[in-house]
Amino acid sequence: MTTLAECETRDGADPLAHFRDRFALPEGVIYLDGNSLGALPRATAGHIARLVETEWGDGLVRSWNAAGWIEAPRRVGAKIARLLGAGDDEVLATDTTSVNIYKLVRAALSADPARHTILTEPGNFPTDLHIAQGIAAEDPAVRVQMAPRESIAAAAGPGTVVLLTHIHYRTGERYDLAAVTRTVRERGGIVVWDLSHSVGAVELDLARDGAELAVGSGYKYLNGGPGAPAFLYVARALQDRLHSPLTGWLGHAEPFAFADDYVAAPRIDRFMCGTPPILGLAALECGVDLHLEADMRLIAAKGQDLCDLFIELVDGKGLDLELITPRDRGARGSHVSYRHPHAYAVMQALIARGVIGDYREPEVIRFGFAPLYNTFAETWRAAEALGEVMTSGAWDKEAFRVRARVT
Amino acid sequence: MTTLAECETRDGADPLAHFRDRFALPEGVIYLDGNSLGALPRATAGHIARLVETEWGDGLVRSWNAAGWIEAPRRVGAKIARLLGAGDDEVLATDTTSVNIYKLVRAALSADPARHTILTEPGNFPTDLHIAQGIAAEDPAVRVQMAPRESIAAAAGPGTVVLLTHIHYRTGERYDLAAVTRTVRERGGIVVWDLSHSVGAVELDLARDGAELAVGSGYKYLNGGPGAPAFLYVARALQDRLHSPLTGWLGHAEPFAFADDYVAAPRIDRFMCGTPPILGLAALECGVDLHLEADMRLIAAKGQDLCDLFIELVDGKGLDLELITPRDRGARGSHVSYRHPHAYAVMQALIARGVIGDYREPEVIRFGFAPLYNTFAETWRAAEALGEVMTSGAWDKEAFRVRARVT
Repeated sequence: MTTLAECETRDGADPLAHFRDRFALPEGVIYLDGNSLGALPRATAGHIARLVETEWGDGLVRSWNAAGWIEAPRRVGAKIARLLGAGDDEVLATDTTSVNIYKLVRAALSADPARHTILTEPGNFPTDLHIAQGIAAEDPAVRVQMAPRESIAAAAGPGTVVLLTHIHYRTGERYDLAAVTRTVRERGGIVVWDLSHSVGAVELDLARDGAELAVGSGYKYLNGGPGAPAFLYVARALQDRLHSPLTGWLGHAEPFAFADDYVAAPRIDRFMCGTPPILGLAALECGVDLHLEADMRLIAAKGQDLCDLFIELVDGKGLDLELITPRDRGARGSHVSYRHPHAYAVMQALIARGVIGDYREPEVIRFGFAPLYNTFAETWRAAEALGEVMTSGAWDKEAFRVRARVT
Repeated sequence: MTTLAECETRDGADPLAHFRDRFALPEGVIYLDGNSLGALPRATAGHIARLVETEWGDGLVRSWNAAGWIEAPRRVGAKIARLLGAGDDEVLATDTTSVNIYKLVRAALSADPARHTILTEPGNFPTDLHIAQGIAAEDPAVRVQMAPRESIAAAAGPGTVVLLTHIHYRTGERYDLAAVTRTVRERGGIVVWDLSHSVGAVELDLARDGAELAVGSGYKYLNGGPGAPAFLYVARALQDRLHSPLTGWLGHAEPFAFADDYVAAPRIDRFMCGTPPILGLAALECGVDLHLEADMRLIAAKGQDLCDLFIELVDGKGLDLELITPRDRGARGSHVSYRHPHAYAVMQALIARGVIGDYREPEVIRFGFAPLYNTFAETWRAAEALGEVMTSGAWDKEAFRVRARVT
C-alpha cells in the first residue's frame, strides 16, 4: 500500500502543486466535495470587491459598456470553450444548468418535426429528468423514454433527442462521448450532453468528438461560487438552425434597438435570454482563468491519479464498502463513490473528523478530487479517516444520533 | 420657479435624506439612472466580501444549510413581498425577469385550456413582447394580440392572458393596477404584471388590488447590482393550480430525495428551477433591506416630489423638449422622459457634464429619480445642466460628433 511518505513525494513532484496556494481553503479540513461546490480561488474576493466598488459603485450604468459587462456571457463562454475543446463562438455562460437544458432540448425537438422523444437513463441527475418530464407534460406529442446506459445509444432513432449526463453525479461513470454521439447521430438522433461533472475534471474535445449540444455547471470543478452561472454549447453548424424557446431581449439581433418584434440574433447569441448576472459571471471567470493557466491534460491526469490512489488505499483496508465507481481511469470522472447501508451516518462521522465529502440518496458516499487543490497526502489522510470511522464504529454512533434526531 | 436654496431647504427637511450616505456614489456625478441600474449600497461590498471569504471560503458546501443559502430565494422573496403588499409566501427571488415572464405566462395559459391569447401593448418593454412572441411561435394555438393601452383592459376576454408593464419603461406612464386587474378578471382573463419600474419606486398593494401574477427586476430601484436576480409573485390562491414549464430540481417537492419522477413542490416553491445565484441574491438582499428600513410611503412620495420639481424647472426654461411623462403624480412612476429629435446627442452632452440619465430609442431622454439617494438640490442642478446643454448648442456639437463617428 502507498504510504504517506510516498504521497508527500508525489505532491513534491506534482506540476500542479503550486495551484493549491491559489485557493483559500480552511485549516483542519480535507475538502473532497469540489464536485458539488468548488473551493474559493484566492483571486476571487479581490476581483469581486473591485467589480462592486469600482465598476458598479463608480462606473454605475456606464460599466455595461465601459467595463465589458454586456460581453461577459460571451467572454466567459469563450474561456470555458477552451476547456471543452469548442470554438470561442460556440459557448455562452448564462442562466442555470436547468434553464439551459430546457433551451437546448426544446430547440433540438422543434428543429425537426419528426422529433418527439426525449431519451434518457433512469437515475440521471434529477434536474435533467425533471426538465425532460416538464417538456413532455406541456406537449402531448413529446414523450420521455428511459433506457439503461448500456443500451441507450442503440435505443435512439430519428425522432430522438438523447439527454445524458456525461459523468454520472452519483457513480462517477463516464460515457464514451464520441462513441455515443456517433451512434446516436448515425441513427438519426441528436445528443444534449450535460457536462456538469466533466468540465474542469476530465479532458473534453467536443469538436473532435462531434458533439452538437451541451450544457454544464459553473460551480463545481470550475470554482465559480455558489449558484454560479451555467454554460451552454451549440456547435457552429447548428446555431442558425436552432431556436431558443426563451426569446428574451438579449437574444434579439439588436437588443438596444428596443424593437417590438423579436428577431433572433445570429449564431450563439440567440441563446441569451435576460440580463446577465454580472457578479456571478465575475466569480466564475476567476475559477475558469485558473484552469486556463494550468493545463487541462495535467488536471485530468492528476484527477485520475488521486482517484486511483484513494481506491487503492480503501481497497487495502478491507472495509465493508461497495465501490460503485469504475476502476478504469477512462471510464469515470474525478469522483469516487461507495455504497453502504448507513452511508449518511458514515459521511457525518467523516465530516466530524474534518473530511468533507458528501452523501447522496440512497446509501452513497461521494469523494470528489479537484486536481487544482487536492493533494496526494490529503487523499491518503482521507482514506485513513474513512478506515477509522468504519472500523471504530464511529459511524454507528452517528447513525444512532441521526435516528434519534429523526424520530 | 423653485430656487436652489429652496431645494436645499427641502433636502434639510427630507425624512429620507440620511439614506443618501448609505450609498457609495461617485464624486462629481448626478446619477439619474437608478431606474436602469440602481446605485451601490455601502453595505453591499462588505456583505459580499463576508459571504465570499467566510461562507464560501471557510464554510464551503456546508453553507448551503449553515448559512441559509438554500433559503435565500424565499428569504429575499419574502422581503420583496413587503414592498409589493404581498404575503411572505407569495414571492421568490429567482432567475431573470425574462425567464419569470415565461414561467408565469406559460403557467397562466396552461391552467385553462380556453386560454389562447397573450394580450399586450405595442411598445411594451422588448423582453415582455419577445417572450410572448416566443411562446406563440412554439404553440400554433397561441397568438399575441396587441391593443393600445387606453383600450387594453376592454380587449381582454375569457381566453386572455394580459401581459403589461405597470410603469412604462420609456414614458413612465402608470397603469391603474387595481382597475385593470379587476376589469380583466371580470372579463374572464388574467393579468401578469411586470413591476420592473415599479418596485421600490411607487407604493404597491398587490393583495388589496387583487393582483394574481407578477414579476420584476432586482437591479433597478431595488439596488441589487448588475444583473441581480429578478422576482416572481404568485397569489396564494393560485399557487397549487399553476405549473411552471421550467420544472428544475429545486421546484421539486423533495429536491434532495434525488427521485427520478418530478413532483411539483407545494405552493410558491414550484416556481424555483435551478440552483440559486447566491452572490447575486446577497447583493439584492442589501438593496431590499434599505427599502425595508425606510418607509415605502415616504419613498414613493419623495419620488413624485422629485419628478414634479424636475418637470416644473424644465417647464420654466421653455426648452425645445416634449414631455412624454404624465404630469399627474398618480399616473406615472419615478422617472421623467422627454422627446427631442437629437435626444441621443443631448444625453451625451449631459453625461459629459456629469449628469447621468439615459437615452432610449427613438428620440427619448430619461431621468430616473431614486428617492433613497437623489436630492432636491441635485434635481435642480440637473435641470440647470439640461437647460445649459439645450441653449448653448452643446447638444448640437455632440450630435455632430455622433454623426462623424457613425459615418
